[in-house]
Amino acid sequence: MKSGKLIGIGVGPGDTELLTIKADKTLKSVPVVCAPRSSSSKPSLALSIVQPVLDEREEGYEVMEPLFPMIEDKNELEGYWDHAADEMAQRLNEGMDLAFITLGDPTVYSTFSYVSSRLKAMGFEVEIVPGVTSFTGCAAASGIQLADKDEIIVIVPKVDERLAQILPHGDTFVIMKTSRHSDELERIISEDNRDKKVMSVQNCSMEDEKVFEGFASDKKYLSTTIVKFSDKN
Amino acid sequence: MKSGKLIGIGVGPGDTELLTIKADKTLKSVPVVCAPRSSSSKPSLALSIVQPVLDEREEGYEVMEPLFPMIEDKNELEGYWDHAADEMAQRLNEGMDLAFITLGDPTVYSTFSYVSSRLKAMGFEVEIVPGVTSFTGCAAASGIQLADKDEIIVIVPKVDERLAQILPHGDTFVIMKTSRHSDELERIISEDNRDKKVMSVQNCSMEDEKVFEGFASDKKYLSTTIVKFSDKN
Repeated sequence: MKSGKLIGIGVGPGDTELLTIKADKTLKSVPVVCAPRSSSSKPSLALSIVQPVLDEREEGYEVMEPLFPMIEDKNELEGYWDHAADEMAQRLNEGMDLAFITLGDPTVYSTFSYVSSRLKAMGFEVEIVPGVTSFTGCAAASGIQLADKDEIIVIVPKVDERLAQILPHGDTFVIMKTSRHSDELERIISEDNRDKKVMSVQNCSMEDEKVFEGFASDKKYLSTTIVKFSDKN
Repeated sequence: MKSGKLIGIGVGPGDTELLTIKADKTLKSVPVVCAPRSSSSKPSLALSIVQPVLDEREEGYEVMEPLFPMIEDKNELEGYWDHAADEMAQRLNEGMDLAFITLGDPTVYSTFSYVSSRLKAMGFEVEIVPGVTSFTGCAAASGIQLADKDEIIVIVPKVDERLAQILPHGDTFVIMKTSRHSDELERIISEDNRDKKVMSVQNCSMEDEKVFEGFASDKKYLSTTIVKFSDKN
């Protein structure tokens, strides 16, 4: 029997309508949908985004929700990923295609790579359906042009010294998960003397989306800050 | 009469199925679709991507194809943008919504900002429907994980000295329009001693897509190179 294929699907920043047509079609036809969750008590956000699409399906399908907890211990984490990959491999061996859904895009800070590298190594076929990233979603929401002409865009997942070091070399910075490090971010950005525009977006493209000028200090998980510098030269 | 709204729509990297559901719905309902083209003899690539969607429409619609030539003279260029914005303003003043389509995403190296800033200044409402960017499309095609954990992504639209300067500070580099500067790019990248993987994609997600390891030297317009460094520490 032919093995099934692993399909990594980016579901976009939050609004179900920001799924691609390809993601929509795939999710309406695959026998297994895999939605990782960070805690057994918290539902998967990616799953809630695609739920309206799954609800339109007529025939049955299976939902797997492997646990990918947010822990620091690398060995323990790898144990969770190994376990998830083994469970997914079972379905693939039974000839079923499996859609693994992730927020935004599967190649950008997503858990997809941890399972896809394992399943690729086991010999399974892997396909990626790209999605709208949270940073273009945030740019759209805040009306900021990320880049024109020769401008360099930098995506930074963490506020630390590396951000300070790269800052003089880029034009637009998309900084993720900023709310817990708002003061440090403000300090780093204020040390750059170029003209700048700062916008923050919380819960991008979702019903409770908030867009505002300046830095995000509210301790929400999904907040992103865009800093756009402009030279007056 | 209420004015129409300008809607910037990202149509994704090339495959019609990478349009979002929202883009699909919008393109099936707006009275005017605006597709800029760089030459009067060359059809708009963005328009060819959405054509299958437009072909499903039952009622009529208007297609505007303003000329945005690839010229260097800034005053002359601004004349073209002014002219396009004025024509678009006419339709908006007649109460019609207008979808302006761009490859990839409207906030990333797109001509959308040139007209949207003008129409915003005239007082018209502007909305953006984000799209799949060419760089996540290319990452999906080449199977490269753009970033995990704390890795910094840098998007560079041009091969020049600024790339060499920012190189030590980032982990993954997406370099656009590389084929005309393939030798210089190779020289800059080879000077970085980190372990690296280099993949190039031509005509991403289109029927004649080519994905290969190394640099792109074929003089195609739409080629993108992804360089991913890894520290062995």
